[in-house]
Amino acid sequence: MASAERASVERRRQRQQGLVIVNTGEGKGKTTAALGVLFRARGRDFRVRMFQFIKHSTAKFGEHRAAKRLEIPIESLGDGFTWLSKDMDETTALAVAQWDRCKEAIADGEEDIIVLDEFTYAMHYGWVEVAEVIETLRRRPRRMHVIITGRYAPPELIDFADLVTEMKLIKHPYEEQGIRAQPGIEY
Amino acid sequence: MASAERASVERRRQRQQGLVIVNTGEGKGKTTAALGVLFRARGRDFRVRMFQFIKHSTAKFGEHRAAKRLEIPIESLGDGFTWLSKDMDETTALAVAQWDRCKEAIADGEEDIIVLDEFTYAMHYGWVEVAEVIETLRRRPRRMHVIITGRYAPPELIDFADLVTEMKLIKHPYEEQGIRAQPGIEY
Repeated sequence: MASAERASVERRRQRQQGLVIVNTGEGKGKTTAALGVLFRARGRDFRVRMFQFIKHSTAKFGEHRAAKRLEIPIESLGDGFTWLSKDMDETTALAVAQWDRCKEAIADGEEDIIVLDEFTYAMHYGWVEVAEVIETLRRRPRRMHVIITGRYAPPELIDFADLVTEMKLIKHPYEEQGIRAQPGIEY
Repeated sequence: MASAERASVERRRQRQQGLVIVNTGEGKGKTTAALGVLFRARGRDFRVRMFQFIKHSTAKFGEHRAAKRLEIPIESLGDGFTWLSKDMDETTALAVAQWDRCKEAIADGEEDIIVLDEFTYAMHYGWVEVAEVIETLRRRPRRMHVIITGRYAPPELIDFADLVTEMKLIKHPYEEQGIRAQPGIEY
């Protein structure tokens, strides 16, 4: 990047007003829209990072390959996780460990946009306290955008967020017509 | 791409069942989710293409730069357009010319996924006939996915589509708090 361009990116970063964005609802597009934001933001050389809160059986998703090409780090649930706790079941421990990494990234303030993908479930099922999440978001660097996706967004989070979109399912081919999920479209 | 991998892409392409997907509603994320699908699909080496139906004042959007890096062709409204008609106003003519290019791309069948971005407006305002759109979609290659975005999706299109999501605005910072649109997030 030329130095003039770098300076312009830095000026823009200074002016940026960080938003807390929630994509929720039963419909499609919650994660995909967050990916789209990261994709667009990488085109502006923003620093972005995605943390996933759902364990996927394989890392060979299209998004991981495309993300690599655009230098978008996607951190899967369980990355670097070591099972130590006697007081928690593994699902809880995985979510808590991932949330710890997110808190660190948010406090570090290195990124322009952080996505907490499917993070609502961790709050919904009580693995992570909503109050702690909101406190962490409140203390984040002023210019950082945080996008949280998933169904069942807690009302306290919706109250706190700046921009909330509900993805509403109007029509779904897999349910109505028995079509299986399509690679490239769904995953 | 190795020839084994190419063969696997080809096999997957053969099995693919094309969907007509509509992202509509007043909320955020309609175009962004479509971009996210293209992003993910490029990670699978799918052939994709996006046609825009809204004229933007500048092509320097983050998405254009990121799209270039991932070899996602985005064709803007007015690309290659020559003003000839005496019977139409320019807005209509631009939309009709863009739709002509889309019809060609759909009939060619070269792409796995085609996005008609903000295309609903062209139908809503009567610049393009819904019946003709549906007929074109009906005749498309069986394996091609088409994603149409924008508010006011016509009911006939919703009836015909396989997957319809309404992006519903729950909370909006720009309206409620007077925050201006943020680069990298909004555009």
